[in-house]
Amino acid sequence: MIYLDNSATTIPEKAVADEIYNMLTANFGNPSSFHKAGLDANAKLRKARQSVANLLGCESEEICFTSGGTEANNLAILGAAAALGRRGKRIVTTAIEHESVLQTVDELEKQGFEVIRLMPDKEGNISKAQIAEAVNADTILVTMMYVNNEVGTVLPVEFIKKAVQKAGAPALVHIDCVQAFGKIPVRPSKLGADLVSVTAHKIHGAKGVGALYVKKGARILPRQFGGEQEKKLRPGTEAIPLIAGFGKACELCSLDSIAQHMAQINAYARQKLLEIEGVTLNSPDSASDYIINFYVPVFMTSQTVVQHLSSKYGICISNGSACAKGKKSHVLTAMKLPDKTIERSVRVSFSRHTTQEDIDALVTAIKETVENYHI
Amino acid sequence: MIYLDNSATTIPEKAVADEIYNMLTANFGNPSSFHKAGLDANAKLRKARQSVANLLGCESEEICFTSGGTEANNLAILGAAAALGRRGKRIVTTAIEHESVLQTVDELEKQGFEVIRLMPDKEGNISKAQIAEAVNADTILVTMMYVNNEVGTVLPVEFIKKAVQKAGAPALVHIDCVQAFGKIPVRPSKLGADLVSVTAHKIHGAKGVGALYVKKGARILPRQFGGEQEKKLRPGTEAIPLIAGFGKACELCSLDSIAQHMAQINAYARQKLLEIEGVTLNSPDSASDYIINFYVPVFMTSQTVVQHLSSKYGICISNGSACAKGKKSHVLTAMKLPDKTIERSVRVSFSRHTTQEDIDALVTAIKETVENYHI
Repeated sequence: MIYLDNSATTIPEKAVADEIYNMLTANFGNPSSFHKAGLDANAKLRKARQSVANLLGCESEEICFTSGGTEANNLAILGAAAALGRRGKRIVTTAIEHESVLQTVDELEKQGFEVIRLMPDKEGNISKAQIAEAVNADTILVTMMYVNNEVGTVLPVEFIKKAVQKAGAPALVHIDCVQAFGKIPVRPSKLGADLVSVTAHKIHGAKGVGALYVKKGARILPRQFGGEQEKKLRPGTEAIPLIAGFGKACELCSLDSIAQHMAQINAYARQKLLEIEGVTLNSPDSASDYIINFYVPVFMTSQTVVQHLSSKYGICISNGSACAKGKKSHVLTAMKLPDKTIERSVRVSFSRHTTQEDIDALVTAIKETVENYHI
Repeated sequence: MIYLDNSATTIPEKAVADEIYNMLTANFGNPSSFHKAGLDANAKLRKARQSVANLLGCESEEICFTSGGTEANNLAILGAAAALGRRGKRIVTTAIEHESVLQTVDELEKQGFEVIRLMPDKEGNISKAQIAEAVNADTILVTMMYVNNEVGTVLPVEFIKKAVQKAGAPALVHIDCVQAFGKIPVRPSKLGADLVSVTAHKIHGAKGVGALYVKKGARILPRQFGGEQEKKLRPGTEAIPLIAGFGKACELCSLDSIAQHMAQINAYARQKLLEIEGVTLNSPDSASDYIINFYVPVFMTSQTVVQHLSSKYGICISNGSACAKGKKSHVLTAMKLPDKTIERSVRVSFSRHTTQEDIDALVTAIKETVENYHI
């Protein structure tokens, strides 16, 4: 199997799987227990918290573990709205966020918040000017992704804090870094972020664990009530096997050493894909090296192309966000691409394990598919 | 290590750990993806959902996976209140619930709901008459645990539905079955439950996954917004390795074959503990076989006893709910036990792997501790 759907999920590193297995079998205590089994698990919890903090360049007490990116985004957005709802009503976001942001701000809109959704240009970019114009003194939250999950555009999130300060807004700045974390440097302090969402399973950790960075002093309200875990911001027995695996996955992320490889893979894939007659790229040149979204000129829709590549060639790609389960892409729609393009575009997404041979296999498969089923 | 803190968490079965490892390494796809990796993961998701449903005797589509018992309780309670808040304001519960219920209804009380907290008798029992008296036509939710996590009392939850019907209340019936599931039969239809919380890590599954049973036709509102997973009631990429392990753990629960063993272990432990001078039991005779809460007549407080037994004897027990992290027990307080008893009571909790030798070691340790540190 050639796996080129790493924006949906990645294969856990063997060291991560081994760490999780070890926690399940040899270190199975409840981190809140006072006996040895509990204390041993608690030590692992603290170590993992530090490992995640190290990759973010923050304090370990600023890390709140969650069940994943969706919960982190929900906690950030709903938690900020609950904490600041009396100080203003405006929430600024974009039209190309992940479903877990889009639908959460939709919910807040129903509750009376004013939601500004910035529209991207035809390459999926959002400009600083748009942000500056949207943020006013009534703004309590700006929530924006760093790297778009469908086309890979990199948003100017480091500008948000300036816009908030200039407007004199009480807003917290939330950055969904699920597709950026572990791939490009994500330092909340440099980004001017109060809240940052990350998840393990996009960086070769396991599905079922993520974290919300909450800047020291930033106040949001919990969404879940119960025990004393995670400073009561997110109670419930910690998913300690997955958390320990998340820590290990963070330790294995070496951004510098992999950047050149990713740039080469991306450039090679772009060049080879563009050599196929009729293929066009929806991802701009400035997009993340990890994601290429492109149009395939065939008479089938993209979901059929995904299935065809899987069944005939053993190649896994996608037609958009896995969470959306095949619904028409809201990102390509917001970019105002023609319906024909939206319906026939696919996404390939790479990992540090992606090789030139993987790209060659992809290109051969796409080429044959275009030749056999040309529109 | 002799592990007698199974109400806090259990050691995962090897078959569960192996299943999780297999999912992490050989079946790592996102269940929402359309290619082979996704479809393979999705098949496992469906199988696990059926395994959990089988143990509950319900339909697989009535299972909503969560990150654990705390989230299941929160989703049930807050989701029911959001769905039914216009039809009534009363919520009936007890004073001896788990923190994830207590603090969640506290939150609803702040929002204007009327919360009735039934007080137990001195053995931790709640009567049918109390339930009948508390439920009125304005009641929108009754939330009660099946087996108490600290003393093991079994609550008459199967009576709730009758009380709701008699009162003509619109109430949903939520039963926190975290300590009952996999130990005694939990069939929502027999219990008259609309919502049932369960978790994997109390039945030799992994920490980080649980489920809420939602009866077909019962309507609650989601607490989290995003993708299409779990019928949008609980979006987010599924924690598929843990979910597959949860399914396996359910398959390994054979209630009938283990019941006799647990009864023997419990009877033996009670007899031997009572032979120690000054020890008294806080758990009534009718309590679950899995839990014994007892008073240790020493001058140290219970937390010190827990640490002493761990460091000197390698025996893991607890002084109440792990989630409460050593706070004074609200359960023993509600039972109106003397402060001296509350401060010096500990809980031992068994699993199907507990042996008579484990009990002998425990009794020796408690006996020596009492002899050396008698109050």
